Amino acid sequence: MTFDVERARAETPGTRHVTHFNNAGAALPPQPVIDAVTAHLDLEARIGGYEAEAKARDGIERVYDSVAALLGCGREEVALVENATVGWDMAFYSLRFDPGDRILTAMAEYSSNFIPYLQVARKTGAVIEVIPNDAHGQLDVAALAASVDDRARGPAKLISITHIPTNGGLVNPAAAVGRIARASGIPYLLDACQTAGQMPIDVDEIGCDMLSATGRKFLRGPRGTGFLYVRKGLLERLEPPMIDNHAATWVAPDRYELRPDARRFENWESNVAARMGLGAAVDYALDWGLDAIWERIGSLADLLRDRLSALPGHEVRDLGETRCGIVTFTAPRPAAEIKRGLATRGINVSVTAAPSTRLDMEARGLDEMVRASVHYYNTEEEIDRLVAALR
Amino acid sequence: MTFDVERARAETPGTRHVTHFNNAGAALPPQPVIDAVTAHLDLEARIGGYEAEAKARDGIERVYDSVAALLGCGREEVALVENATVGWDMAFYSLRFDPGDRILTAMAEYSSNFIPYLQVARKTGAVIEVIPNDAHGQLDVAALAASVDDRARGPAKLISITHIPTNGGLVNPAAAVGRIARASGIPYLLDACQTAGQMPIDVDEIGCDMLSATGRKFLRGPRGTGFLYVRKGLLERLEPPMIDNHAATWVAPDRYELRPDARRFENWESNVAARMGLGAAVDYALDWGLDAIWERIGSLADLLRDRLSALPGHEVRDLGETRCGIVTFTAPRPAAEIKRGLATRGINVSVTAAPSTRLDMEARGLDEMVRASVHYYNTEEEIDRLVAALR
Repeated sequence: MTFDVERARAETPGTRHVTHFNNAGAALPPQPVIDAVTAHLDLEARIGGYEAEAKARDGIERVYDSVAALLGCGREEVALVENATVGWDMAFYSLRFDPGDRILTAMAEYSSNFIPYLQVARKTGAVIEVIPNDAHGQLDVAALAASVDDRARGPAKLISITHIPTNGGLVNPAAAVGRIARASGIPYLLDACQTAGQMPIDVDEIGCDMLSATGRKFLRGPRGTGFLYVRKGLLERLEPPMIDNHAATWVAPDRYELRPDARRFENWESNVAARMGLGAAVDYALDWGLDAIWERIGSLADLLRDRLSALPGHEVRDLGETRCGIVTFTAPRPAAEIKRGLATRGINVSVTAAPSTRLDMEARGLDEMVRASVHYYNTEEEIDRLVAALR
Repeated sequence: MTFDVERARAETPGTRHVTHFNNAGAALPPQPVIDAVTAHLDLEARIGGYEAEAKARDGIERVYDSVAALLGCGREEVALVENATVGWDMAFYSLRFDPGDRILTAMAEYSSNFIPYLQVARKTGAVIEVIPNDAHGQLDVAALAASVDDRARGPAKLISITHIPTNGGLVNPAAAVGRIARASGIPYLLDACQTAGQMPIDVDEIGCDMLSATGRKFLRGPRGTGFLYVRKGLLERLEPPMIDNHAATWVAPDRYELRPDARRFENWESNVAARMGLGAAVDYALDWGLDAIWERIGSLADLLRDRLSALPGHEVRDLGETRCGIVTFTAPRPAAEIKRGLATRGINVSVTAAPSTRLDMEARGLDEMVRASVHYYNTEEEIDRLVAALR
């Protein structure tokens, strides 16, 4: 399969200005995303914010269809939120824990998930249990299965993992985890922040009950956008931690009724222009095809890892049976210095430090890494330029 | 004091397209706001979302200074959030209630606040107590004082009111409420969603401990923006209901530390372009001067109320000792029909219905009203046009 990189770059104005290897931070938006945002902002300025929203109603509703198509779920199972953290929070904080209830998670769990585990554990007496890694450096599925079965340690009330961690190149075995979750009837929350737009997602195949993702990363959407999927049978039993007159209706002085769909996890006001941009970003990714995108990213990432491994003093720190477009490495100089040096040459990378994935980084004796994350619009020449600059 | 309406309109592209009386929904943005948003979106598309944020760091920080100047508070007491609801929620849901603890609120309280009261009351056993109105139709300050003193009914744990309700023309006596809150040491949360940009705010003069507001209404900022003020002495004692790696740092495997400032109520990811627009909107309002804005809005609203009162079959339903730019009235035809009819003439108004302010609307036997909200860029001629169209 060949990928029309030339078209991808022609449709991405930023490629003419920077060599962008910070796609796991925020990717460069393509022209259709820029146009969708700008068009709606123009309409708002011309006729008013609410009036523009009314006029764009059909287009806004289509964003739910687009996200549903991306995830393989129903549109009523989709909430559009401000970012992946808000989506994840609205799901996680909806769950009720009793003392001794176990939250099962993985070694490379992201700080913005682990901090809420700690908060809820302290408040409720729930217990966090970190499933060890297998020999590949990814979540050990057999250990998870054994833990789920070990009732003596208390009931496992939630399986909550990051699909693609913020660093380490890893793709956790989400579908294998899903089979365990389904078999045991334990709710399964998947953080797919780095997955959406990078690889195909099918919530039924994965078997997750809740999934959160962001617009700005591999989907190439606007900042301040994200979404949450909650399976229909579950969402009806969840009361969001915070609700307003969009999530619920004040039906009598002493009573409110929650919406029946996933929009109970939203609040009323949003940046509508950014939502339109999110929809355009999802459509654009679907148009390229997630299989094609994933294949192209994989081949660029393999090339980058090969080239970095050949660089004296540099060490690729990626793990897992399946590796993604997030390439992380250590170097003879401090990561921040490398990032700054590359920036002066118009090359964007990022720094990833211990507080982001503390358990994993401490276990591996790392305190920081350089992260170079590739997208399909990157080229082999850009990889050459990065490696030459590092040398 | 004369107001340079001509300049205000020249700097507001929307005034050339619509007659906008939906400023309490979302006002028309001025050119500096449009420019601030667009400039940052352009930068993001050109060099990347995170790289643009790093470059705009000083400008982003100045938004906190602008909001602090608007409210008369310290910059470390300001959180920038997605909208007023999120700001209000992050404050309200931080509070802890025991069975019997009383939440004191007012008759015209907004649904998006009252629904959370109901949720928390059900979860914790807290009790909602609605302070009656006085003869002017605003919160009865003497009744509030008596209620606060009445320990037999249980401890009053929170005073939480809307400053300017979504309809009804009312400005609740926020500073008088503040004096009672201070004297009794009861935390005081003020919803200033319709206040910010419409009239001067000084949190010390008002005496509130927490205040939430939005960007899109009278401040004329972008949709999807808002802010929360929390007084320094209080914020250090509040743990937000949801936290991430921006609100807190994961300092050890089993421990996180909350930020010391109000940004503990934020989450990391935001629509940075919209934030830049919010800053521009606040600066623009400060540049006109809130006293001048408030005076101009008051005179336009008085004129509109006079003209509507003279219209057969129309009845202005506004209450309160002090009235604001939100003019609400009933008419011989359904409100939605009036809104649609005016829209065909390029005139924007909105409909306000019972579920928004259920206690007040039910007490007054109203099920819906038309809302025509004026801003300083509206003109006497536009009011003539609205009234002629209604006739």
